[in-house]
Amino acid sequence: MKGVIAAAAMSLVISDFANAEEKRGKAMIKIEPSAISEADIRAVSPALARFGREAITEDLWTSAPLSPRDRSMVTVAILIARNQPGDLKHFTEIALDTGVTPAELSEIITHLAFYSGWPNAMSAISVTKAVFESRGVTADALPEASPALLPLNQEKEKQRSETVEKNIGPISPGLVKFTADPLFLDLWQRPALKPRDRSLITVSALIASGQSAQIGYHLNRAMDNGLSAAEAGEVVTQAAFYAGWPNAFTAAPVVGEILRNRSSSKE
Amino acid sequence: MKGVIAAAAMSLVISDFANAEEKRGKAMIKIEPSAISEADIRAVSPALARFGREAITEDLWTSAPLSPRDRSMVTVAILIARNQPGDLKHFTEIALDTGVTPAELSEIITHLAFYSGWPNAMSAISVTKAVFESRGVTADALPEASPALLPLNQEKEKQRSETVEKNIGPISPGLVKFTADPLFLDLWQRPALKPRDRSLITVSALIASGQSAQIGYHLNRAMDNGLSAAEAGEVVTQAAFYAGWPNAFTAAPVVGEILRNRSSSKE
Amino acid sequence: MKGVIAAAAMSLVISDFANAEEKRGKAMIKIEPSAISEADIRAVSPALARFGREAITEDLWTSAPLSPRDRSMVTVAILIARNQPGDLKHFTEIALDTGVTPAELSEIITHLAFYSGWPNAMSAISVTKAVFESRGVTADALPEASPALLPLNQEKEKQRSETVEKNIGPISPGLVKFTADPLFLDLWQRPALKPRDRSLITVSALIASGQSAQIGYHLNRAMDNGLSAAEAGEVVTQAAFYAGWPNAFTAAPVVGEILRNRSSSKE
Repeated sequence: MKGVIAAAAMSLVISDFANAEEKRGKAMIKIEPSAISEADIRAVSPALARFGREAITEDLWTSAPLSPRDRSMVTVAILIARNQPGDLKHFTEIALDTGVTPAELSEIITHLAFYSGWPNAMSAISVTKAVFESRGVTADALPEASPALLPLNQEKEKQRSETVEKNIGPISPGLVKFTADPLFLDLWQRPALKPRDRSLITVSALIASGQSAQIGYHLNRAMDNGLSAAEAGEVVTQAAFYAGWPNAFTAAPVVGEILRNRSSSKE
Repeated sequence: MKGVIAAAAMSLVISDFANAEEKRGKAMIKIEPSAISEADIRAVSPALARFGREAITEDLWTSAPLSPRDRSMVTVAILIARNQPGDLKHFTEIALDTGVTPAELSEIITHLAFYSGWPNAMSAISVTKAVFESRGVTADALPEASPALLPLNQEKEKQRSETVEKNIGPISPGLVKFTADPLFLDLWQRPALKPRDRSLITVSALIASGQSAQIGYHLNRAMDNGLSAAEAGEVVTQAAFYAGWPNAFTAAPVVGEILRNRSSSKE
Repeated sequence: MKGVIAAAAMSLVISDFANAEEKRGKAMIKIEPSAISEADIRAVSPALARFGREAITEDLWTSAPLSPRDRSMVTVAILIARNQPGDLKHFTEIALDTGVTPAELSEIITHLAFYSGWPNAMSAISVTKAVFESRGVTADALPEASPALLPLNQEKEKQRSETVEKNIGPISPGLVKFTADPLFLDLWQRPALKPRDRSLITVSALIASGQSAQIGYHLNRAMDNGLSAAEAGEVVTQAAFYAGWPNAFTAAPVVGEILRNRSSSKE
């Protein structure tokens, strides 16, 4: 009975969230599945042009569980994680058109330098610099290098640092040091990206590179900060198209385990 | 005793297959290991030029267990899975020269949009469009967008959809939906690529991206549709050169388990 | 007590090694974190420019546990493994400036053709050919195609070949053949790269592509040939920045297990 009430409460929360996101992000624009034109795709595969139009443009990007703004962030994170600057330009434009601000985009790249490797972020810098120039985005629209940080949850940080010290300390003191500062004491506390969005792009990057062992920690963090169960599941759907079905099917059971654990711990 | 007979029968099947494939695909052409010229390779590493010539051109591509046509399909699938458009042009040309038709190539890219992610297929579209233009391949050589589909094995599809619904349904309803249509009810039933070849490129893409957990299902499907044990093993060898030894060594025990299970279930 | 003595002895070995490496490789040059200029990075993310300067240039590359020469080799291996030719040019130059010889660079690419796939090595050939030309590196600076090989440890090679024959023989005879020759009987015995460095780049490539199952064998080999525990741990730190935190956190426990096993087997 408690489970039923919890589920009902959760679905209310979910629908509130979906509505809020929808108002904020749902632009009435048509999302092309790629930077390549439909005519060029048809010149090699009429079927692929059809699948892109029917499944991606008309279905995936208009589906309720995730707002276009969220889908843009997820897709940009996937493309950075997989280092695909060609399509990244296309989806950077779509991100800006669906409600992601230049400041948020800047912060997404900064964040993924740590989670996808510096060279991937550098490819994204090249692409985004050109997009910013063409749109007249200037320095004052960007997050400061050293802003006032969000307040740190001291208890959670103590847990995190003790776990890392215990597990990694005897192996790689350098990794322990950089994981504290700049990673958790600086980057994660920067205010230019909402904690929920920061965790959302981290989870997206992990799914895109098949790093399933580390999805759990970051998905829990995302959901603690407001990502709904329906949104989490739909991130996997979005990843199927942009990072391939095998990565989605690898991630799904991991996401499922987190959802079950969170659901049962609330009963 | 039954095992001996089964093994003998299997080896007959294998040799029939190898002969058929050989007749169909074995062109008397010299396969350069890469788009980079041997002179350019020598300018950085005379040893790598030698290894490429001795191990790849003169040995790998002329080895019996896999026809040049199959090796081309495997290599093209690996390059699309790893998003390497530079060498993809080279091996697209080789594919067309060893018996892969433009229609099959078109269908391989369409298929891998789902298994390697849309952006990887889009890179392949760019490369292949240029190759088709230079060879005068026109629209009438390509598979239709919506052809009559192969008949569906209703029982197997019921099993598949029930398993996916049970495992993924509570997590990601969107993924369940798209996995049915367009993936299994449309793409997999398209007639422009033989079921055996469709599964072969799926397995190749999985090996190339280290997705070992999902090799089993697709390798069984490939072998149900005619891929021999010797061919399966040699796909791993081809992957060693084009996706690196670690991916081959990760895949080999998974392939081995499938071969043992199939062999024992026949006794 | 024996453990204490062993630890003390190990720390002496480590510091000797660090000193030797430091003298050899530590150039007083400032390492930019990427080929992208700091001004261009700032145009998208002032924060990322700051993190690169503070954490990478001023901290990571000047940290004691790994020499700049080693960091260059590790970074070049990571970039080849992840096929990122853009930054590879930048770090190829840094490698040559921090004590990696053209002959060693040539040999690193040759080695990684096998461990990261031929197409990745071919991208590296294009980049390195241009760097060699601009620096006037000519053919006589390169390792021979077929030099006299290092003497083979017959006993270890017997172990290796028996294990591979047992595990892979029934699945892929072709893979067994090429793993013997050219891989272990030729490539690994080439004298142009010290065995310790050859294993170091292999481990780096494995960490960079998330191939944790195969780190153990190669890390043991690296340490048998002189890589210290502190250096091994710091390779993971270097990988965090250039291949992303998730790959570093996947590798750390595997490295930790090897360090513990080696430490306890010495007591």
